[in-house]
Amino acid sequence: MHEDGPTAKNFSKDDLRVVLVAPRNPLNIGAAARAMANFGFTRLRLVNPYEVAYREARSAMGAAPLLAAAEECATVADAVADCVLVVGTTSVGHRELEHPLRRLEHGARLIRKAGGPAALLFGSEKFGLSNEDMSHCHWLMRIATVDVNRSMNLGQAVAVCLYELARDARAAARPAKSKAASAADAEQITAMLVEALERSGYIKPLTALSSKAKVRRLVRRLNLTARDAPVVLGMLRQILWKISAT
Amino acid sequence: MHEDGPTAKNFSKDDLRVVLVAPRNPLNIGAAARAMANFGFTRLRLVNPYEVAYREARSAMGAAPLLAAAEECATVADAVADCVLVVGTTSVGHRELEHPLRRLEHGARLIRKAGGPAALLFGSEKFGLSNEDMSHCHWLMRIATVDVNRSMNLGQAVAVCLYELARDARAAARPAKSKAASAADAEQITAMLVEALERSGYIKPLTALSSKAKVRRLVRRLNLTARDAPVVLGMLRQILWKISAT
Repeated sequence: MHEDGPTAKNFSKDDLRVVLVAPRNPLNIGAAARAMANFGFTRLRLVNPYEVAYREARSAMGAAPLLAAAEECATVADAVADCVLVVGTTSVGHRELEHPLRRLEHGARLIRKAGGPAALLFGSEKFGLSNEDMSHCHWLMRIATVDVNRSMNLGQAVAVCLYELARDARAAARPAKSKAASAADAEQITAMLVEALERSGYIKPLTALSSKAKVRRLVRRLNLTARDAPVVLGMLRQILWKISAT
Repeated sequence: MHEDGPTAKNFSKDDLRVVLVAPRNPLNIGAAARAMANFGFTRLRLVNPYEVAYREARSAMGAAPLLAAAEECATVADAVADCVLVVGTTSVGHRELEHPLRRLEHGARLIRKAGGPAALLFGSEKFGLSNEDMSHCHWLMRIATVDVNRSMNLGQAVAVCLYELARDARAAARPAKSKAASAADAEQITAMLVEALERSGYIKPLTALSSKAKVRRLVRRLNLTARDAPVVLGMLRQILWKISAT
């Protein structure tokens, strides 16, 4: 039943076309290209860019090869012609739109599942996407901002969208890699610290037992690494030597 | 056992201090403030900013109140003094660092669980955070970029970090809100389309049965919304009327 749908395939960063529609500010074109380079996306298309801006942007730091390979298109239709999914970005609220509107967290998942080339459209700094531009889109996507400050800088909006597309959900739960100090090390540190505190008169004989428990809990809460434990032990050893010598 | 740890409390955006250390470019200070305004963060601190840049940034669009309320600090120690967690950002790889390094996806979760005010430090555009700056940090955080283009624009890095801190994981799975067309509507559209195709000679009597099944599948794949179904029905009705009239 091949006719019933395209074969699913994994999302590749080369499948995404970042389309800037009528951008005016060279800094923003450069910033969009730089964010693409940061997150490993390669295909930039510009629809009807302001010529001067485009030329100036080509000198943007760190993104020169990407800008040199950018494609210029006369219309939105040309820029999305090879795409199976076309998504527009907007900062406008749902009520004013004729399209389904999805939050970036959800939309990015759908783009990754597009099964082929997908276009992500960004409008001009001043006006965003026009209704005509949006009519080429399957749906719209917004970055969840606070209501009173919905309009984002173009370069920042591109960076945030590409970050979400490149985001690795599994990394959120990844544990820290530094090995924790062993219980034996923690206990030796506790013992030496208690001795130093006793000798220096901080711990009084009457409350020594409860004080020792307090110190033990304190040392456990420090979450010392295996690498730091011998350093702390060396410090305490030296302090104890000094106390004993006086 | 109150001494064993602070009472856990929910993360509030007012708990985060965004700390720019020695920023030089007014556009970047303005961009950082604008991203904060977009994502609802309010507390900006600048350590030793380049004076001219700071003054120019105060005119940044959409972020004026935030910049006016920004606090200037002489040292990193001052800027983080009221924080229970201090996190530095870096684009440098793990091998060169003395600190634990976490990916943003993971680090943001830990910041939300800090249980009190947390500082997020960004270094200068040119040099990043110094070793001295980093020594004030509990750990470091990086945005996962491609290895050959690790250095991000400061304003974009701030935007991406704040987006992740404000991100709603539940929104990723949120279904689209537009109601789908009923099976009855889809079937009526199928019937009218088949009739139009038969009358116009597209469907041949010999293959009519399999053609009808093909059309039915095609219509189901369109995922029509409840709102669009009557529009499509109206179009087909008109086309059928025209075909019958000729």
